[in-house]
Amino acid sequence: MKRVPEKFEFRPIGVARTPFKEPRGAPIQPVAAENARGEIEIYAEFAEGLLDIEGFSHIVVLYAFHLSEGYNLTPKPFLEDVAHGVFAVRAPKRPNPIGMSVVRLLERRGNVLVVENPDFIDGTPILDIKPHVPEFDAPRGNVRIGWLEKRVENARSKKADDRFLNTE
Amino acid sequence: MKRVPEKFEFRPIGVARTPFKEPRGAPIQPVAAENARGEIEIYAEFAEGLLDIEGFSHIVVLYAFHLSEGYNLTPKPFLEDVAHGVFAVRAPKRPNPIGMSVVRLLERRGNVLVVENPDFIDGTPILDIKPHVPEFDAPRGNVRIGWLEKRVENARSKKADDRFLNTE
Repeated sequence: MKRVPEKFEFRPIGVARTPFKEPRGAPIQPVAAENARGEIEIYAEFAEGLLDIEGFSHIVVLYAFHLSEGYNLTPKPFLEDVAHGVFAVRAPKRPNPIGMSVVRLLERRGNVLVVENPDFIDGTPILDIKPHVPEFDAPRGNVRIGWLEKRVENARSKKADDRFLNTE
Repeated sequence: MKRVPEKFEFRPIGVARTPFKEPRGAPIQPVAAENARGEIEIYAEFAEGLLDIEGFSHIVVLYAFHLSEGYNLTPKPFLEDVAHGVFAVRAPKRPNPIGMSVVRLLERRGNVLVVENPDFIDGTPILDIKPHVPEFDAPRGNVRIGWLEKRVENARSKKADDRFLNTE
């Protein structure tokens, strides 16, 4: 039996270019960034891995919340001034600060993916790209969203404030 | 301007217990594991982060493909015997072997999450848990899934074979 490593090391496969130069004022979810465009540059050594990606209208982007330092197990999220467990919110300060966004893929230009509604900031290190497949990623039927039930509509307009910055 | 690190180090926050003891024969996606149950044990030091997770019917599980070694930028996926870019498939051998599965959360027992349809193997190191929110994660309207269009139905029955094992 192979031993499970105590830690995993990942290196960026690319970098994001978006209109959001700093966390403050950035959209907190893709739904709040619908009129924005951004680019994901995949480094040349990995570019071959993009073959056929343009057939997918949406991609899952995994990235590092690279400005995030430390974490709080029960933060108050942007959308509600009540503490929830960090695994029940999407805030950037997490034990493993990995972000996930589903964005529309508008176009591929060589090793650059042009995307709509990026909600990650400029310079974000990209860890992985996966095709978004509704049959795998979007459960049908009764989906409950807990504390977000009455808050999710606000995600369209809410912008990030300073609460997850390290300069507090 | 803060420099972007060249690598990121993540440590497991928990471990999965599932009926799938080895990659061979494991379901290749949650849709193929609908009658299976599994548990995700979150380590005690992170358990407080689960507060209010039980309000969500589905969770996004990020984990390490811990048995995966190396990668191929243009693999032949399980569902089709044609090569596609690794970023256009969901196979485990990736530049950064991070897996993502959306699973149904049946119950929380303290620091243990009981989940339906896990498609990850027993002993999988868990990196992050996020609430699944359709408004964020399930785009509406026209979603295209490229080469998977005629293959996705097979994901329900297809089991993993040996192609991504390291014992080849």
